[in-house]
Amino acid sequence: MGEKRFVYMDHAATTFTKSEVIEAMLPFLKEHFGNPSSLYSIGREGKEAIETAREQLAKAIGANPEEIYFTSGGTESDNWAIKGTAFARRKKGKHIITTPIEHHAVLYPCEYLQTKGFDVTYLPVDRYGLVDPSEVEAAVRKDTIFISVMYANNEIGTIEPIPEIGEIAKEHGIPFHTDAVQVIGKIPLDMKQKDRNVDMLSLSSHKFYGPKGIGALYLREGTEIENYMHGGGQERKKRAGTENVAGIVGLGKAIELATANLEKHNERTKKMRDRLLAGILEIPDCMLNGHPEKRLPDNLNFSFEYIEGESLLLMLDQRGICSSTGSACSSGSLEPSHVLRAIGLPPEIAQGSLRLTLGDENSEEDVDYVLEVLPEIVGKLRAMSPFYKPTTACEK
Amino acid sequence: MGEKRFVYMDHAATTFTKSEVIEAMLPFLKEHFGNPSSLYSIGREGKEAIETAREQLAKAIGANPEEIYFTSGGTESDNWAIKGTAFARRKKGKHIITTPIEHHAVLYPCEYLQTKGFDVTYLPVDRYGLVDPSEVEAAVRKDTIFISVMYANNEIGTIEPIPEIGEIAKEHGIPFHTDAVQVIGKIPLDMKQKDRNVDMLSLSSHKFYGPKGIGALYLREGTEIENYMHGGGQERKKRAGTENVAGIVGLGKAIELATANLEKHNERTKKMRDRLLAGILEIPDCMLNGHPEKRLPDNLNFSFEYIEGESLLLMLDQRGICSSTGSACSSGSLEPSHVLRAIGLPPEIAQGSLRLTLGDENSEEDVDYVLEVLPEIVGKLRAMSPFYKPTTACEK
Repeated sequence: MGEKRFVYMDHAATTFTKSEVIEAMLPFLKEHFGNPSSLYSIGREGKEAIETAREQLAKAIGANPEEIYFTSGGTESDNWAIKGTAFARRKKGKHIITTPIEHHAVLYPCEYLQTKGFDVTYLPVDRYGLVDPSEVEAAVRKDTIFISVMYANNEIGTIEPIPEIGEIAKEHGIPFHTDAVQVIGKIPLDMKQKDRNVDMLSLSSHKFYGPKGIGALYLREGTEIENYMHGGGQERKKRAGTENVAGIVGLGKAIELATANLEKHNERTKKMRDRLLAGILEIPDCMLNGHPEKRLPDNLNFSFEYIEGESLLLMLDQRGICSSTGSACSSGSLEPSHVLRAIGLPPEIAQGSLRLTLGDENSEEDVDYVLEVLPEIVGKLRAMSPFYKPTTACEK
Repeated sequence: MGEKRFVYMDHAATTFTKSEVIEAMLPFLKEHFGNPSSLYSIGREGKEAIETAREQLAKAIGANPEEIYFTSGGTESDNWAIKGTAFARRKKGKHIITTPIEHHAVLYPCEYLQTKGFDVTYLPVDRYGLVDPSEVEAAVRKDTIFISVMYANNEIGTIEPIPEIGEIAKEHGIPFHTDAVQVIGKIPLDMKQKDRNVDMLSLSSHKFYGPKGIGALYLREGTEIENYMHGGGQERKKRAGTENVAGIVGLGKAIELATANLEKHNERTKKMRDRLLAGILEIPDCMLNGHPEKRLPDNLNFSFEYIEGESLLLMLDQRGICSSTGSACSSGSLEPSHVLRAIGLPPEIAQGSLRLTLGDENSEEDVDYVLEVLPEIVGKLRAMSPFYKPTTACEK
């Protein structure tokens, strides 16, 4: 047993906050603490900082600043987009189209709406988790009031054909929402060109090296939506509540850095990822989940037969490696991942999954370390399983 | 014209974040950045820190930790309490009782519910903004599904008879919510004794020297309420979304300090407030708004005849004094305060209001400075008004 390292490979769950981001935030916890709704100078400083962050975010995704609304995170953005659109368009219909592999922050609001009389169609996905745009077309009804398909899946990394789905939504005049929480800093977004048919887009700062507790909803001008947070006149009367100024400033700085760093991030993480992938696939009876090419550059998700994900995680943690099984938000429950079930994995295989997501502070030495430790742990766990009989190679 | 000072007297709008609070938060932006839902050690550190903060908050208000749910702030807590209770109890009735002097984070959710078929009774208040508990009794109907009355008013500082209203709610078996955003660190709360009939209580960290963007909802065990943020299993499956760990830790530290400091805070601010009050009432044609005794120890609210609040604010800001007119959350609009209108002030008087709210960093020198500057500014503004004819003394 070699030296123990600390290797964080769970960047899809959350990222550390970059020091430049913390530095940008601190003055707004300290001297510039004024309420941005106030008329005096220390309030105006906060207000100006919020508008700078709004411009940083708008620029990063090719949007207009007035289409950006800050929220408390991806979950609020998703809840707002989904419930806000459904209730605003209730008189036009009650049908919603989404997928079974969405984050729970999309799925559960949809389930909630089902209890309020809405109909939800969950599109089929293939074995890689891909949605076929023709299935979207086929699912559209006269009473369809919106479509929500995630930009890329948080567990298996599969990237959905968002521009194509957007075209279909546009043709039918149906508002289109996408949860883009996993894609910032990895897939360039352009709300004026490639993503011009996306009407609502959710994002969350702590997935791109910003602080937790802050996110945003992009709302294309003219999108029909009810407010979700009612109260003060903040965010141009669309999202009430005293602004989390430090958080907003942190988000702005973080997305500026993430966008500037996008190509380098992708190049670095892809290189590490590909070596990690090749090395892990040497382990017998394992397979890669998600699409082999149409996937986020920093995501790997494997199923190891005859292994429980939880045990794998805990043993990796003992060796200093942070990873996840299923999504972190539901890992408390340890039920088999709904994503892996939706792409057709039987529950016993879905339970033996491991997600490794790379980030800016990972190094080739981290890859070496995981490639040294993981096969050993898998071997140990399988040795303890009465069902395991070694077969041959891996299936990619 | 004397020396210019910086005097912040708008603590009801927001407070600075105490350095001990920032120190407590920083590790959770830096090394302890893990997602609290994760199973590995740096995730567990975040989880443990959240539970410590929950205990700090529970202890501060005499609650059980399992009755505390962290939210993104007072606005979310109010929205959740009001809409969550209304929708959960819709089959039992559609009648809501509240007051016309609530914060907009209560009023606007109630107005929203009116568009969804709910009935809202706005209780009368007297000239001080006080609710008479017998009016609550009189307003109760068979189909009343909840009551929401603020603990203390954010503009005029009047403290409502919450224990008495709670008794009435309890007798009728009606859930009772109170917005306590302004009272933490000023009025001791005890959910097991004095406040035992409060079922839901909203609070917000940035009003008691904690960070912005974090708050909590106290939910008495057994309270019937729908979830508001649907998604991951955080907060024991009642409030989804990756936890704002640093913010939660900050809230915990801040409420611990605020509670420990409560008596000293009240003694200091009351002393300064009373001298400020006596001095300001020397100015002709002004009056104190809110109850003379049943008011927050740090709040003063005046109406100055023949003066526009906005001009007063801007001139005070030029002299380094931060103050407000109406609530900061709606000050962007500068419509006459709904609170001052509800207590019977005519719009032209309501528009000439000034709120001064004291806090921990204020000093007797600040009081001296305001007493030097304010009469001078009031005099100047009145000299510019064609309507002003000096009368005699002030009315308290």
